[in-house]
Amino acid sequence: MTDYLWSKGDDRGPDGAVQGFLAGEDVVWDRYLFEHDITASRAHVAGLARIGILNDDERARLDDALAHLGDAFAGGAFELGPPHEDGHSAIEAYLTERLGETGKKVHTGRSRNDQVQVALRLYLRARLDALDEACRDIAGAFLDRAAADGGLVMPGYTHLQRAVPSTAGLWLAGFAEAFIDVAGLAALTRSWLNSSPLGTAAGYGVNLPLDREGTAAALGFDRLQINPQYAQNSRGRFEFQALSCLAQATLELRRLAWDLSLYASAEFGFVKLASRYLTGSSIMPNKTNPDAVELLRAQHAVVQGALTELQAALALPSGYHRDLQVTKPPLIRAFESGLRALRLIPDLVATLEFDAAKMRAAIDPELHATDAAVEQALEGVAFRDAYRGA
Amino acid sequence: MTDYLWSKGDDRGPDGAVQGFLAGEDVVWDRYLFEHDITASRAHVAGLARIGILNDDERARLDDALAHLGDAFAGGAFELGPPHEDGHSAIEAYLTERLGETGKKVHTGRSRNDQVQVALRLYLRARLDALDEACRDIAGAFLDRAAADGGLVMPGYTHLQRAVPSTAGLWLAGFAEAFIDVAGLAALTRSWLNSSPLGTAAGYGVNLPLDREGTAAALGFDRLQINPQYAQNSRGRFEFQALSCLAQATLELRRLAWDLSLYASAEFGFVKLASRYLTGSSIMPNKTNPDAVELLRAQHAVVQGALTELQAALALPSGYHRDLQVTKPPLIRAFESGLRALRLIPDLVATLEFDAAKMRAAIDPELHATDAAVEQALEGVAFRDAYRGA
Amino acid sequence: MTDYLWSKGDDRGPDGAVQGFLAGEDVVWDRYLFEHDITASRAHVAGLARIGILNDDERARLDDALAHLGDAFAGGAFELGPPHEDGHSAIEAYLTERLGETGKKVHTGRSRNDQVQVALRLYLRARLDALDEACRDIAGAFLDRAAADGGLVMPGYTHLQRAVPSTAGLWLAGFAEAFIDVAGLAALTRSWLNSSPLGTAAGYGVNLPLDREGTAAALGFDRLQINPQYAQNSRGRFEFQALSCLAQATLELRRLAWDLSLYASAEFGFVKLASRYLTGSSIMPNKTNPDAVELLRAQHAVVQGALTELQAALALPSGYHRDLQVTKPPLIRAFESGLRALRLIPDLVATLEFDAAKMRAAIDPELHATDAAVEQALEGVAFRDAYRGA
Amino acid sequence: MTDYLWSKGDDRGPDGAVQGFLAGEDVVWDRYLFEHDITASRAHVAGLARIGILNDDERARLDDALAHLGDAFAGGAFELGPPHEDGHSAIEAYLTERLGETGKKVHTGRSRNDQVQVALRLYLRARLDALDEACRDIAGAFLDRAAADGGLVMPGYTHLQRAVPSTAGLWLAGFAEAFIDVAGLAALTRSWLNSSPLGTAAGYGVNLPLDREGTAAALGFDRLQINPQYAQNSRGRFEFQALSCLAQATLELRRLAWDLSLYASAEFGFVKLASRYLTGSSIMPNKTNPDAVELLRAQHAVVQGALTELQAALALPSGYHRDLQVTKPPLIRAFESGLRALRLIPDLVATLEFDAAKMRAAIDPELHATDAAVEQALEGVAFRDAYRGA
Repeated sequence: MTDYLWSKGDDRGPDGAVQGFLAGEDVVWDRYLFEHDITASRAHVAGLARIGILNDDERARLDDALAHLGDAFAGGAFELGPPHEDGHSAIEAYLTERLGETGKKVHTGRSRNDQVQVALRLYLRARLDALDEACRDIAGAFLDRAAADGGLVMPGYTHLQRAVPSTAGLWLAGFAEAFIDVAGLAALTRSWLNSSPLGTAAGYGVNLPLDREGTAAALGFDRLQINPQYAQNSRGRFEFQALSCLAQATLELRRLAWDLSLYASAEFGFVKLASRYLTGSSIMPNKTNPDAVELLRAQHAVVQGALTELQAALALPSGYHRDLQVTKPPLIRAFESGLRALRLIPDLVATLEFDAAKMRAAIDPELHATDAAVEQALEGVAFRDAYRGA
Repeated sequence: MTDYLWSKGDDRGPDGAVQGFLAGEDVVWDRYLFEHDITASRAHVAGLARIGILNDDERARLDDALAHLGDAFAGGAFELGPPHEDGHSAIEAYLTERLGETGKKVHTGRSRNDQVQVALRLYLRARLDALDEACRDIAGAFLDRAAADGGLVMPGYTHLQRAVPSTAGLWLAGFAEAFIDVAGLAALTRSWLNSSPLGTAAGYGVNLPLDREGTAAALGFDRLQINPQYAQNSRGRFEFQALSCLAQATLELRRLAWDLSLYASAEFGFVKLASRYLTGSSIMPNKTNPDAVELLRAQHAVVQGALTELQAALALPSGYHRDLQVTKPPLIRAFESGLRALRLIPDLVATLEFDAAKMRAAIDPELHATDAAVEQALEGVAFRDAYRGA
Repeated sequence: MTDYLWSKGDDRGPDGAVQGFLAGEDVVWDRYLFEHDITASRAHVAGLARIGILNDDERARLDDALAHLGDAFAGGAFELGPPHEDGHSAIEAYLTERLGETGKKVHTGRSRNDQVQVALRLYLRARLDALDEACRDIAGAFLDRAAADGGLVMPGYTHLQRAVPSTAGLWLAGFAEAFIDVAGLAALTRSWLNSSPLGTAAGYGVNLPLDREGTAAALGFDRLQINPQYAQNSRGRFEFQALSCLAQATLELRRLAWDLSLYASAEFGFVKLASRYLTGSSIMPNKTNPDAVELLRAQHAVVQGALTELQAALALPSGYHRDLQVTKPPLIRAFESGLRALRLIPDLVATLEFDAAKMRAAIDPELHATDAAVEQALEGVAFRDAYRGA
Repeated sequence: MTDYLWSKGDDRGPDGAVQGFLAGEDVVWDRYLFEHDITASRAHVAGLARIGILNDDERARLDDALAHLGDAFAGGAFELGPPHEDGHSAIEAYLTERLGETGKKVHTGRSRNDQVQVALRLYLRARLDALDEACRDIAGAFLDRAAADGGLVMPGYTHLQRAVPSTAGLWLAGFAEAFIDVAGLAALTRSWLNSSPLGTAAGYGVNLPLDREGTAAALGFDRLQINPQYAQNSRGRFEFQALSCLAQATLELRRLAWDLSLYASAEFGFVKLASRYLTGSSIMPNKTNPDAVELLRAQHAVVQGALTELQAALALPSGYHRDLQVTKPPLIRAFESGLRALRLIPDLVATLEFDAAKMRAAIDPELHATDAAVEQALEGVAFRDAYRGA
């Protein structure tokens, strides 16, 4: 039976079936936020001490206990899950159990509403940093391959039809530039959303002179979300923007995986993937299949689904509503699986083998027609006439 | 380390990181399909016996072992998860471990491709039946309340503006009729997709005279999916249709939850929810919040996200591709959480209290203006003139 | 300046900029509904006569005028657009201008809310009929080609890898069966939504003994939507269900177009499209591109976008809200463009040429490995052993 | 009959029905891009002159003709639509008709692929600028109202339940801060995508020493998209990012409109909208409805649908495919309607009237409970004890 933070000793509140519906999985998703919740709680505690709500001893004991909880969670000694209603309640319950009255002071001047907002903000920041890094790693892998094998010739395609002569280098470097730009977007997005919601309580502030600037600085935020209603109304929207950035990576990944899926077919035959990216069939002994590439291609579906789910949950008036809880799973699901997918790319790219002969053989003579027309244009023939004469 | 069904003794195949990416969670989702996979495997075994691939003893031993596996899974003695690559592999591994050579015969004439399709089909059928039943239960609960309290007056609203006098009965019965229609759609959808993919192997049939009609009948299918490519290409699309039906329920649920959210506000004050649907605030001692209603409202977001994710994953040429694996989580997530939400409604409706006085007090005198204009129309005044004179 | 139906002679109401925002394009979308609105208006007029609101002469004059308006619209003599606020207002304005007081009676006992619902219902019915027919035509075209060229051999693919020997017949007939099932779904969906909302007014009925059964029968409905709130709350949801059915067609179309896009490439080389489905490049003289196939492939994006837009607009409490206006464009856009796309398929299929030699040449010897393993299984070798020995 | 740019005098190419499907509406959407296409064409012409493809006279005549075409289009004298295949073809046809051989030189070194990309880029830039400005105007309007009426008290809500005392100022300023942040995001997004695709031709460059830096600078780009494949693969993705930014505005708008819809109800009664934002009912003489607010609320549905449609169309391998054509309508539709909606807000906000008495009356005494508990916490009571004692 859940012991509710907000219980006042009476028997109010959800029973088993309703509680299972309300919080059963939510507290599991909070595992992804818990370290950030603890980090922010430590900053909050320090802030309360600065305005005299906690004395030095209380501050130190709360801080130690929070640090200990963080270690216990990271090490697996503390497990977050039912019967905790959520990660926020778990923190206060842990502190109260350990520290008695002092633990009951941790929630002074905050609400779970700004508590989850600040934890999510730190999570988003960390994931955007990870995305930035993953994209730069991918770009590096492509540039390495372009340096090594860039000169291999292959057709350039439009409409899946052979169009003009091109090179592996153009193909490889195209992805490098794309992922460099996504890395840049991740940094911009991080900077855009790097503002502190901590201290806005339930969306209407609180009658305490909280040191909002201090806690923001301690947590590495660039600025405050000043207005408490805005802090609440940005719930889900900042997640949406971070996911939009992730989508840039998975959209490009989808095009890459499509290329690889085609190039690895018998018909194209341009590339061979390392065997660890291949699987077999349960019925056809002859098959080796590029399953990893196909799941990379499918990764954007998860991100797109998450974007949709998020937007659907946000059709609300101002202020906190419990609907917002459902914004967590799509966000976390998309980022965790998206980053896992992206981190496979550098090795996949580094280990693929080109079949130079097949690539060259696909350069049909008529692929030079455009070059020829342009050469005539250089000699003064109007381009459209040169084109028509080709 | 995974022991692959398709391994031929060499060291082909994904290593740790790739295998984690490929199958880590998929096998967990297979828990929802496993009982259906076993049921279909038993039908497949019986079919193989009918065409002489298995003798009576082999058939009996396989059937017994499958039955035992089903019981062990249901009872928790058999756990499906890594290192199994998927539920299908787990079945063959279990049978081979128990029965030796006989176990190695179970996969004769089938592929994991038709195996997952038939298991999904049985899952969809079961969930549409459950949806049908849940919607009829909901309709019943609304009709009971309409019979009991239908005569209470309240305003009818358009544009959230009071419009005309109405009753609790009209409001309650509207939801009853809506859910009756969704139940009907569930039945139609079930009938539409109740065709057997078993025996189509990897999408191109198999050189065996499989008794497809026999296995279809044994599994309660109305007909065959005759063409094996169609059986494969329907992957995801039948799931989409089942989810569309679920969406009808959750879209209506969203409107209901919106009404309840408004009617439970201080401003409307028309209804009071049972206390088990209410929670408190971590900071505001005075609050009781209708969290359950808000999460019911948010449920459609999950279904909508699932529909999007599914469609995104299906952008493929004909035949099986590993991308299709990502159609499982959104499907299962949406149905399991959707049904859980819908099953809360009958009790929620049965236990809500109307505040008859507040409902009546909201009938402003000008709400009778339309009736008055229509009465003039009955006396021969042109309706538009009566309207303008009102 | 718009002359509002609901104006009472004062200067209430939107001015230019706001009116442009509110209705500027809506009245243009009403062109797709106008014939249905007229049809339903004639049934409503006949119903009003049956309950004595109109005398015989009034009924006849209104019916004649409506018939005339329908002809004028169909013939282009009457144009629907600004300054009409919407199609509904246009009808009453036309009748009032022509028939004076009698015209002002047409709106007795109805609201624009049930008026748009009944027009949309008739539109959905007509479009589902058209979808049913289009899908049957497509299936016929595929079956014709299967009868003519079904014996041509080609590889069957999984994961875009050559898997087993197959035939053009299997490929063609797979699409035939798919579209037959979509046609069946269109008929089921039509039957599910074929209920009459006419007579439910603004969602709360009206104080007149309207002959709802009579108007429903006259309009070919199978049954009534009894509850007026349900009639309003089904707005958008019935559209969603019709679009889900259309999505089944465009999802299958996407797989077909993908196959054609690949098979028309130089690398596969299996098919050649008729020249009217091909275009050229502005810069590359050598190119012919299968643009038509690519736009067919993209068609589902329009339908998927429409499904999303629709669901997003429906996040509302019970009753009519102006938000619902935005459900019209995605619905109509998706159906009109979707049907146009589908209607191209029969000719596209009938005119494509197979390259039998290239198809046969793609059957690598190892594609027979599965057959060989199954043959061993027929001789008693356990399938998995036969597989491993292959 | 369309005269194709790429026709070589033979009878290749789409006939009526296919052409209608391929380009019928696309050329209409090009009206939104045409001014940008002309601007970029002038830069391209100047660049061709700098590398000697055009002499001074040719350059001047082309530039004059392009300027004239721009004026003619802006003034309505030149209409873009069928039989033009698209805006790009229309430009070359216009120049060739006017200038003969010189006109046929304009397309030297470019493809419609980079031509549409550069036009879209300029369009995106202009729309992000407009979004930035619109958001700053909205923020200004909210700040003005906050300055004038910020002191009016009203409840703060969570879960649509009265929570704590708040003010109109907090509510107004929250939207101001939100829209200021969206304006900032628009500027960041503009800067992120402000790179020049011009000169990348069909995705593989061209055998000419085009002055890419020169044309980029002339068009106000910050940098080049260096890799031609990336330039093509970014099609749709940059649009997606711009729409994500627009979505931030419409998501916030949805919350605002929800608040207004509630506050304008009889039950809340906090605000009255100016009459130009209200409409009437066709059947209920007593109604005035906040239709404008409801359509503002629905605006995000258009943007969300567009995001979905765009992503669905991008499931492609590298390089240009005609599928990409369908990315135009959702982009343009969302931006044009979105900006129109946003531009209504400043006046809507400036003209709404608060009902100070009703706002104050909604402050129930128990709304002070949180303040009281916090005050006890200030005096040393542990917050949770103070909460429980409240």
